[in-house]
Amino acid sequence: MEEHLLEVAARRFASAGYRQTTLDDIARHAGVAKASMYRYFENKQELLAKIFLRVADTLARSLRPLRTAPLPPDEKLRRTVQELLRTIGENVALFTVFYSEEADLPARLQAEVAEVRQRFMADLEGILREGVSQGVFRPVNARLVVYAIIGMCAWLHKWYLPGRERLEEVTAAFVELIERGCLAVRGTREKDRLADQLRHLQELLGTLATQVEHLEQGSPARR
Amino acid sequence: MEEHLLEVAARRFASAGYRQTTLDDIARHAGVAKASMYRYFENKQELLAKIFLRVADTLARSLRPLRTAPLPPDEKLRRTVQELLRTIGENVALFTVFYSEEADLPARLQAEVAEVRQRFMADLEGILREGVSQGVFRPVNARLVVYAIIGMCAWLHKWYLPGRERLEEVTAAFVELIERGCLAVRGTREKDRLADQLRHLQELLGTLATQVEHLEQGSPARR
Repeated sequence: MEEHLLEVAARRFASAGYRQTTLDDIARHAGVAKASMYRYFENKQELLAKIFLRVADTLARSLRPLRTAPLPPDEKLRRTVQELLRTIGENVALFTVFYSEEADLPARLQAEVAEVRQRFMADLEGILREGVSQGVFRPVNARLVVYAIIGMCAWLHKWYLPGRERLEEVTAAFVELIERGCLAVRGTREKDRLADQLRHLQELLGTLATQVEHLEQGSPARR
Repeated sequence: MEEHLLEVAARRFASAGYRQTTLDDIARHAGVAKASMYRYFENKQELLAKIFLRVADTLARSLRPLRTAPLPPDEKLRRTVQELLRTIGENVALFTVFYSEEADLPARLQAEVAEVRQRFMADLEGILREGVSQGVFRPVNARLVVYAIIGMCAWLHKWYLPGRERLEEVTAAFVELIERGCLAVRGTREKDRLADQLRHLQELLGTLATQVEHLEQGSPARR
């Protein structure tokens, strides 16, 4: 029930704005008596607070473990982006409130939310730095790339319509964009391999050319 | 003066929210008498409308010409991203209002703003498609990449602090990320060039090997 009320409240806040939404309004849309809502929330601000805590908790639970998972940094980055997009895509209303209504949170909670955000950014930055130091990523400005990735993913709440887009498709496109943007690996490794082969062949060719020259000098009649 | 009032209003709306800001408040922060504000705006909603029209106009003026400029698509994309980031970075308050307070616009203006956004997205998508068809970009899902680019750039208004970040640095990092993410060119072209050289050398080598074989058969004494 609390879950249901949070979801309905988030949808109302997201579409009409927090200040413009009343508890009556939420109760009506949730199909419950206003009186019974008070079992779960003392007032509208507590509802807002719970929405923020829910989002913060979801972010922390789904993303924190990736930071220290025994995976290479490019795989960590891939999964972080996938998780972030999945989390936002499945909770568009909650994230719309999360990204728009922070001004109405009590100060203590604002600080708490800021901390969750900082931690998430620091985790993502850590993954990028790890990748750069291992040579998996090119030497990016990790802090700015974090902002780019978060912006790209967070913006999802502004345009994503589950009926119109397939989240898997969005995720695949974004992951590909970010990976190609960050990875030092793929292109370079193949280029290095080709360059090595080329060098090897050029040496062989040099040897062969010398050989041919010697042979030709040895049999001038064949000219 | 109108310019100054728009800027002050945008800053107040951005920090306190449109609904929570009064004309008195704006007049005080702008250092003008409220009465003299009425020469420029009939009411608060007209102020909001002018902010939106200003942003829409800025976007249109700075970005539309790029669509049809006589430039290759990768250069168009680069300049579009640069222009978008510069425009947002130099007008953070205006864009904060633009991205947060649309619900309070009169319906007619909402439609107008939606059209400017659609046009901008269509232009950007056109550039991407052009690049894909020319083989400059890899075959991306242009519509999704447009959302990714806009999200990445639009998010700037949430975190960019002119004193802390240098806009040129942000732009360079984002352009690099997007270019590497989209371009088929750099990596591939160099790879193609290397692969061509390799093929050419292998042919030469084959010819030389045949030649050597013939020469050796022709001068068995030298074995």
